Amino acid sequence: MQKLIFTNDVSNELDALINEMAPDKVAMLCDSHTFQIAEGLAPSGAEIICLGAGDENKNLDSVSEVWTHLSLNGYTRNSLLVNVGGGMITDLGGFAAACFKRGIRFINVPTTLLGAVDAAVGGKTGINFLDFKNEIGAFCEAQAVIISTRYFSTLPAAELRSGFAEMLKHGLISSAEAYGRLMAFDIVEADLDALLPLLQESVEVKRRIVAEDPREQGIRRALNLGHTAGHAFESYALERKEPIPHGFAVAHGLLVEMILSHLQLGFPSSELHRYASLLREAYFPAPPISCKDYDALLGLMSHDKKNRRTGEINFTLLSDSGVPVIDRTATPDEIRTALDLYRDLLGL
Amino acid sequence: MQKLIFTNDVSNELDALINEMAPDKVAMLCDSHTFQIAEGLAPSGAEIICLGAGDENKNLDSVSEVWTHLSLNGYTRNSLLVNVGGGMITDLGGFAAACFKRGIRFINVPTTLLGAVDAAVGGKTGINFLDFKNEIGAFCEAQAVIISTRYFSTLPAAELRSGFAEMLKHGLISSAEAYGRLMAFDIVEADLDALLPLLQESVEVKRRIVAEDPREQGIRRALNLGHTAGHAFESYALERKEPIPHGFAVAHGLLVEMILSHLQLGFPSSELHRYASLLREAYFPAPPISCKDYDALLGLMSHDKKNRRTGEINFTLLSDSGVPVIDRTATPDEIRTALDLYRDLLGL
Repeated sequence: MQKLIFTNDVSNELDALINEMAPDKVAMLCDSHTFQIAEGLAPSGAEIICLGAGDENKNLDSVSEVWTHLSLNGYTRNSLLVNVGGGMITDLGGFAAACFKRGIRFINVPTTLLGAVDAAVGGKTGINFLDFKNEIGAFCEAQAVIISTRYFSTLPAAELRSGFAEMLKHGLISSAEAYGRLMAFDIVEADLDALLPLLQESVEVKRRIVAEDPREQGIRRALNLGHTAGHAFESYALERKEPIPHGFAVAHGLLVEMILSHLQLGFPSSELHRYASLLREAYFPAPPISCKDYDALLGLMSHDKKNRRTGEINFTLLSDSGVPVIDRTATPDEIRTALDLYRDLLGL
Repeated sequence: MQKLIFTNDVSNELDALINEMAPDKVAMLCDSHTFQIAEGLAPSGAEIICLGAGDENKNLDSVSEVWTHLSLNGYTRNSLLVNVGGGMITDLGGFAAACFKRGIRFINVPTTLLGAVDAAVGGKTGINFLDFKNEIGAFCEAQAVIISTRYFSTLPAAELRSGFAEMLKHGLISSAEAYGRLMAFDIVEADLDALLPLLQESVEVKRRIVAEDPREQGIRRALNLGHTAGHAFESYALERKEPIPHGFAVAHGLLVEMILSHLQLGFPSSELHRYASLLREAYFPAPPISCKDYDALLGLMSHDKKNRRTGEINFTLLSDSGVPVIDRTATPDEIRTALDLYRDLLGL
């Protein structure tokens, strides 16, 4: 069973865990943004592997660099990898650990809100390949995840909002009350102490769903809410060399999919308006989309690995706040209509 | 549950399986040696991915080639990969399938005796990395393995003997009777019809052990008999650019580890002599080892990923034929002594 530790004393918790796990060697994986944090946490004798920061380094070359270090420095199946960073580091490090000698143990220490609420928990590891996000990967859970809000105070505001989008998603699929608490929270002037209980609630939603369906054969697909359209926005922005943060893409993907939910399942239109207002007021900048971009977006959606048949586009939708409905599909025409309404709601 | 099919009509069995699994796309993976077999088996519409033959192609570049083909040709989580070849293809193809979109289904059609008895069954997939064999990989079982002796008639004699070494290992860890039946079989002038029931018995030994302990946390380590010394012979030969077949390395590793079993656990010396005679009579050429090579061999053994602590060398040994004892270690001095006795027994 995975340990989930909420603390403001990461260093002590990590030392205690390592002591208990008794690995023969420890490597800390980080990127240039989190090097100092990793260095501060590293137990005596641990080696630090530092990658370039950013999603463009979440690739096979970087994984290969990690494997090379581990191979050439005598790491065994009893060694431990500690991933210190955002989702890029915990996804990539988890995948590296899952495949090194067919699997060694790893601990995640997410240093971003998005990483804490999304990537670090749940066992989906992976890297980008060619132009496809998380195309190569493995299902493999960290032995433990240590979550602290102390690292968030120095994050850019955009990163906090990006992570908050995933929290909104967890609210939407768990209960109207949880969603309501998040809608009432001011993420623009965020109080990190007040955020902590909301974060814990949010991570527990994910953990509960993953425990029920680790391999995503059923209810775990609820976690994909917002991600079919969101990934398309994200990939499209990347192709045009104007990358947008994952969380911003998801925030906007959520609106598109709420609209589809409204069209297909009667999700209340009042919630569409309330959520669109949040997007505008909380400064989630919209991807610059016009109707000329629809074909490209549909093409990206039809490549999504969540699709179960070639040519079919799969969505998780909502019949109401807190009530996800998995395994829905939408036709290209329905998606075009939803994108039209999306642009209307945001005045694009 | 993995299907294990013994047949002389691979084509019909494969068609029936694919029909039942209903994938949206099928790719056949093969190498230049097995291209014609793969082409003959390919269902209508299947694409063929052909790699260069040989262990030197069992690497990250080849896996990347497979992933590129799957990514760029619209394969989904519901697609199927059929691996047609020896252990190199089933190991590499299994790893490629295990990680593509975090896992798609695959079927193995081993075309060599070694592949049938060893690599194709049991879920250990992987590739070589740097100079280390199977350094990167995943535990992931094929949905089905279709085993036929029809492909063996065109194999070089050395390949048959190489596979037979793994069968001997399965005999040694399962029962004195099974081992005895194998010792009575003439692998030099092999009758493939008479080989079939022995092969089936041998594969069932492996399947039974793997089912009991898929992640190799206990009894599965019995299957490593012969492989600590064997891998060292194999890697050392490769480093010296005089590669030897995996099965030959294992055949000789078995003798070294029987000697250690004799020294530590009283394994009968009569069996050492009987087995050493077989090695000579059945033309398992010995690796050209002198005492000057011991340090290099010990270094390779201490890097073996089966070791549980840095600096410790782990073995599976035997207290008698059919009675494996896992999690044994041996000191460098004991191993040197065993290598001395090994050279004596073979007159090296």
